[in-house]
Amino acid sequence: MPTMNDVARLAGVSRGTVSNYINGVQVKLESQQRIQAAITELNYVPNSTARELKLNRSNFVVFILPTTRTPFFAELTQEIQQMLKQKNYKMLLCTSQNDIAEELEYIQMAKEQKVAGILTISYSDLGKYLTNDVPIVSIENHLSKTIPCVSSDNYAGGCMAAKQLLEKGAKNLLILTRSTEKTAVNYGQRAQGFIDYCQHKQVDYTVFDSPYHEDRFYPQLQTFLMNTYQKACPFDGIFAVSDQYADFSYTILRQLGHAVPQSVQLIGFDGGKMYPEQKYFLSSIRQPVKKIAEQCVSRLEELLWNKENDVKKTTILPIEFVQGETTKK
Amino acid sequence: MPTMNDVARLAGVSRGTVSNYINGVQVKLESQQRIQAAITELNYVPNSTARELKLNRSNFVVFILPTTRTPFFAELTQEIQQMLKQKNYKMLLCTSQNDIAEELEYIQMAKEQKVAGILTISYSDLGKYLTNDVPIVSIENHLSKTIPCVSSDNYAGGCMAAKQLLEKGAKNLLILTRSTEKTAVNYGQRAQGFIDYCQHKQVDYTVFDSPYHEDRFYPQLQTFLMNTYQKACPFDGIFAVSDQYADFSYTILRQLGHAVPQSVQLIGFDGGKMYPEQKYFLSSIRQPVKKIAEQCVSRLEELLWNKENDVKKTTILPIEFVQGETTKK
Repeated sequence: MPTMNDVARLAGVSRGTVSNYINGVQVKLESQQRIQAAITELNYVPNSTARELKLNRSNFVVFILPTTRTPFFAELTQEIQQMLKQKNYKMLLCTSQNDIAEELEYIQMAKEQKVAGILTISYSDLGKYLTNDVPIVSIENHLSKTIPCVSSDNYAGGCMAAKQLLEKGAKNLLILTRSTEKTAVNYGQRAQGFIDYCQHKQVDYTVFDSPYHEDRFYPQLQTFLMNTYQKACPFDGIFAVSDQYADFSYTILRQLGHAVPQSVQLIGFDGGKMYPEQKYFLSSIRQPVKKIAEQCVSRLEELLWNKENDVKKTTILPIEFVQGETTKK
Repeated sequence: MPTMNDVARLAGVSRGTVSNYINGVQVKLESQQRIQAAITELNYVPNSTARELKLNRSNFVVFILPTTRTPFFAELTQEIQQMLKQKNYKMLLCTSQNDIAEELEYIQMAKEQKVAGILTISYSDLGKYLTNDVPIVSIENHLSKTIPCVSSDNYAGGCMAAKQLLEKGAKNLLILTRSTEKTAVNYGQRAQGFIDYCQHKQVDYTVFDSPYHEDRFYPQLQTFLMNTYQKACPFDGIFAVSDQYADFSYTILRQLGHAVPQSVQLIGFDGGKMYPEQKYFLSSIRQPVKKIAEQCVSRLEELLWNKENDVKKTTILPIEFVQGETTKK
């Protein structure tokens, strides 16, 4: 494999001049041309690692998220990777399984690699472990007052779900949520928006809430729905704080023989699809995935180029209702 | 931020000794202890980039795939990332949108970064552009005779789909496939397995095939299904060569009022789920995702440590039938 010395020899310039040219330092036009000709002739590939060492920062961005295995996370991963690519960064993908130990390992790795920055979706109490030696932007969860956070408008999404159900004729509303410390920022706000809207409209609502991890949550939810919907549909409008819970509930309602949306209407949250080409089956509050990707990369670049104090600490992005087949038209 | 010199000074050893210690070169036990104490005291983070430059290879692995936005690709991405992590590699995620220009850009980047290797799912004619300066393992598609390939047993999957439909009482079989140059290796083999099994059993079958990209394929398939199933169910057993096509077909059959699986049974291919916790809705031929991840990382390590000739060129992994709700029990 040709080296920088080979290029210098063929171009008839010093190794330092080749190095300058490759690292973007101005060299004489004539030298530029000779060096480029030699690089092409030799099929020389510059060593990014050496270049990064000199600049003391790589163009890697670490992206930490719980998993890629939900439609929302899979779409977000793709959009962020493409956005980073547009801006000449590369994504180091890190799935954490929601485990803070894995998250901390990735952050340590990010420091060792001297990455340009970290984007993270973490529901752990990571804030207290973070120092300001690597720029970091959080998605959804405020990790600390000094770390910029980009999020969907979860509260407005909850309000919108209640509004849609009422406008579509539902009279008895049910909300399905899971409130743990980890879900306070997203599910908590979605539920609060829904409840506040109902109270504002003086409409009755019932809350199913569970403080448990999903291992226990799902069996609980199943029992509740089986008992509640055994014979009739006491609640004709359901808002589930995630598409996944809505999907789970839909299966049970169908098993019990209830017609969705005729007897009971159902709205989820996320607006993810199994395949991009698919039509929406679940009616849902859709998160603006592409905008989240754009905004978190923008915040990261601001951290890299501006003074930290100039960077917007909270970016809240508008959501929208998407009509699927689980609500009336 | 503390430097290697600071560590050397505090530990009372030379910078070279600290460097050796960090790069895994044997140093005296006493020096080890002093250096480790100094590292802890100063909260010193070694610079991986410098270490990599010395070793002339990073521990990054580039993973190129069309998209993360299908359940199969999202699951495979997660499994490969976790498998790489276990073996101390980091994943550079690269989505190509099935565009050969993007694939080639990522391969050039891989060379510049001096990555440990490349894992790729590509349906392009990449083989002719690849040189052997970076170890590469292909998933699903044989890129060339010298590049190891890891794949599900697509042919056996096609046979199994036919066998299942016949055993579950279907009499008139239909296969839905799309045969382009790019799909020859996966869809082509799945279809061939299905057809060969039918011929072996002397059972009639009908083939819907399209040579077009999905932009034209879906409207064609829709028209075909609408016409064919307008009044009755002339085919009571359908095999679609991907879950995505099966899902699309299911929606149309349901719109036309046909009962699945009572009037028509349906089997897809991949066995992906929208959420890991979900039950299978589509009956399908499931690809062994975890085994694919294990095997492609193993092949890559063999390329890194062994002579190229010792590395198995083709690894074909067994598939299984998963019972969802679209076939009879």
